[in-house]
Amino acid sequence: VSTRLYSFVAGASGAWRIERMDAIAGAALPGAARLEIVAGSGAGDKATWVLRGMTSNERYVTREEKQQLVAKQEGLGRPASTCAALIPIRKSEAWWLLPQDERRRILEERSAHIQTGLRYLPAVARRLHHCRDLGTPEPFDFITWFEFAPSESAAFDRLLAELRATPEWEYVEREVDIRLARAPA
Amino acid sequence: VSTRLYSFVAGASGAWRIERMDAIAGAALPGAARLEIVAGSGAGDKATWVLRGMTSNERYVTREEKQQLVAKQEGLGRPASTCAALIPIRKSEAWWLLPQDERRRILEERSAHIQTGLRYLPAVARRLHHCRDLGTPEPFDFITWFEFAPSESAAFDRLLAELRATPEWEYVEREVDIRLARAPA
Repeated sequence: VSTRLYSFVAGASGAWRIERMDAIAGAALPGAARLEIVAGSGAGDKATWVLRGMTSNERYVTREEKQQLVAKQEGLGRPASTCAALIPIRKSEAWWLLPQDERRRILEERSAHIQTGLRYLPAVARRLHHCRDLGTPEPFDFITWFEFAPSESAAFDRLLAELRATPEWEYVEREVDIRLARAPA
Repeated sequence: VSTRLYSFVAGASGAWRIERMDAIAGAALPGAARLEIVAGSGAGDKATWVLRGMTSNERYVTREEKQQLVAKQEGLGRPASTCAALIPIRKSEAWWLLPQDERRRILEERSAHIQTGLRYLPAVARRLHHCRDLGTPEPFDFITWFEFAPSESAAFDRLLAELRATPEWEYVEREVDIRLARAPA
């Protein structure tokens, strides 16, 4: 199993308590009490559901944007980041048929996806996982995991509202918004 | 298993006879007599080796380049295309750490990868498969399958020589060049 693969395992146990699950577009996911994030391929025997994805190379970011991101962003696991969101997304076939330059234009020049994300750094930490080319038919194309302090919850909601109002989001055909809180040890 | 997944199964049987295998960079692959291309995940019990990869969205091509490619290219399986090449490649970590704009600049503005390929259409038909994000540790990042008529073999060699002389190829750390001929039915 690749060291870049992560499994998001929902069920009765896990380090994160699921507080809310909203189907923003398309079908919902079955409800569950807890979520565990596992390096590698999570065994899903007792799981309600398992989503898998890989960290990978940048698909749209330029050198200048990458430097801005690296300068501002902070990592996962900060003690104050007791809130999290797991947001799996599937984009339409029309999106994937677009050539690279048109996807970039929609994502950044027209939707400011990268610049919008930058404005919420370092408050919101994130890790993007790709699922579209895993070899198995996956229900989503991407899974993003976000962590932030409770005081940043309203800001995080604004970030999502901004992104969902963009031309890029017209290509999102399935999206589930899962909110979590770190469970007491 | 995804409908975009293909397995290249080398062993004692298969529709293609392996005529030559050259390690261009990095380690060779074990020798085998035949190759079969299987949709999905090829069972590799009796195989000498199996390489797997997925067709996926374009990573670098612009709208204009895509239109040029679509206008000139022909599909796999042409009766006259009795020659084939299977070329698996792995690029370096340095390549994958580059942001999108710099990979594009090296691949096309400096190396003319897409324009060079265009000049050999429709003689050379090809299908590109991605292996880097399969979830399992794969020995290569890409597998390209090429088909052409015997009369185009010298042209195909020129195509490879042109590509291997580019700045892009400085990032290729493993490459095996496998030549095949369609086996009589």
